[in-house]
Amino acid sequence: MDSHVAPVPLDKAYRLINHGPTVLVSARHDGMDNVMAAAWSCALDFDPPKLTVILDKTTRTRELIEKTGRFVIQVPTVAQLQLTYAVGNLGRTQVPDKLQRAGVQWFAMDGHDLPFVAGCSAWLACRLIAEPHNQETYDLFVGDVVGAWADTRAFAHGHWGFEHAAPEWRSLHYIAGGQFYAIGESLKAEPLE
Amino acid sequence: MDSHVAPVPLDKAYRLINHGPTVLVSARHDGMDNVMAAAWSCALDFDPPKLTVILDKTTRTRELIEKTGRFVIQVPTVAQLQLTYAVGNLGRTQVPDKLQRAGVQWFAMDGHDLPFVAGCSAWLACRLIAEPHNQETYDLFVGDVVGAWADTRAFAHGHWGFEHAAPEWRSLHYIAGGQFYAIGESLKAEPLE
Repeated sequence: MDSHVAPVPLDKAYRLINHGPTVLVSARHDGMDNVMAAAWSCALDFDPPKLTVILDKTTRTRELIEKTGRFVIQVPTVAQLQLTYAVGNLGRTQVPDKLQRAGVQWFAMDGHDLPFVAGCSAWLACRLIAEPHNQETYDLFVGDVVGAWADTRAFAHGHWGFEHAAPEWRSLHYIAGGQFYAIGESLKAEPLE
Repeated sequence: MDSHVAPVPLDKAYRLINHGPTVLVSARHDGMDNVMAAAWSCALDFDPPKLTVILDKTTRTRELIEKTGRFVIQVPTVAQLQLTYAVGNLGRTQVPDKLQRAGVQWFAMDGHDLPFVAGCSAWLACRLIAEPHNQETYDLFVGDVVGAWADTRAFAHGHWGFEHAAPEWRSLHYIAGGQFYAIGESLKAEPLE
């Protein structure tokens, strides 16, 4: 494991996606690893942590997840803008060399037979909670988060440190047509009386 | 209606929340208007647009929505940091004057018998799609978006203009413990070959 990648306690894992970043969804089945981008992923519970992600029926990554019930949600960075756009807009079926074209590099995490995208700021290993009605009707997949990690240059001691890190570490928030926003300034509300 | 508030075509409504902002959820029943903050709201479909929002069983706003099947998801701004934190952390039952303490002001939208929070950057009027299993098991509510509007100083012609607007218009993205991030810099991916 990269020396900067550290485990995140599961009761803090929701914080990795609480600010609504666009994520990358990866999965592995029968010798195939794939990854796609998803703007529609959201925390669902604190502890044990759960999340949702919307996966279109046309995607190969969804097929892999339906076969194995395992996937990784990871938080890409500003440095991965082009990679994120590419894996979100190239279909593996139409573009077999999608991963090479997008520049995806994998790494392994001990104890998890899943493909993790190198260079992200955070990773959540998930086990699918089968919900056939939600999957068919809404393309909505529910995951139990069973492992969480972050790059300590972006997230440490339970907190994002975007305001102290290089701007390339900021999360991406997709709108449409290739346009994203990076996450911005940290703001602290006053305690309530 | 405020002269800056303009309708957003429903096929562009997903863009109002695609970047994962923390939202305010408001509802009306039997003479009571209430509003809460929700970090866990997410687009679910493009056209017709749908969204999800997680509503804890202890909240009064959830009770109102369960009674009427109607609610508003709105996008608060940096200028509403303290308001957002307050309506997310004060319970109406324990703090009956919650709305006054948070500084919430309502406005009306023709044709919608719902309370809209003044000063936000965008509003989505929703009709609940009843999903008892999701509501009970996950606190997950699905809404059909039946009307959408934005303040043209923040969102116009189908696009957010955070990079051109005053910083107070930026969306809020909650982490924990009163800490938010504002949305940041606009980034455009290169077209794919």
